[in-house]
Amino acid sequence: MCEANAYLLGDKSEILVMESVDHVSPEGDGLKLVDIFGEQKFLRAAIHSLSLVDHKVFLKQLDDRDG
Amino acid sequence: MCEANAYLLGDKSEILVMESVDHVSPEGDGLKLVDIFGEQKFLRAAIHSLSLVDHKVFLKQLDDRDG
Repeated sequence: MCEANAYLLGDKSEILVMESVDHVSPEGDGLKLVDIFGEQKFLRAAIHSLSLVDHKVFLKQLDDRDG
Repeated sequence: MCEANAYLLGDKSEILVMESVDHVSPEGDGLKLVDIFGEQKFLRAAIHSLSLVDHKVFLKQLDDRDG
């Protein structure tokens, strides 16, 4: 299984937001993450970068502007 | 190894742009893809979505605006 862990990139840190992520897709003004167990999480973030052999997905938070 | 294949999303199709992708990261106004053999490719695109258990990374082309 090639799921990955999703990290939110902070100033000088990476915060683990979800483990065993399978699907990541745009939803509304953010991203929907779904893990291999079907658990879902929504984040106001975008996909920043990937390091797949290391099983890592990096997300960056979107700033909190409204339309 | 948990590399993936990268597809560019078209209107009604997915075009395979690189196999065995390990790293995807922002570079300039696009993305740099690096496969497990160290080969690099640059695309004016953003990461759209991921389907990791299926080993798929979906990219969307950025429109060709300057400045």
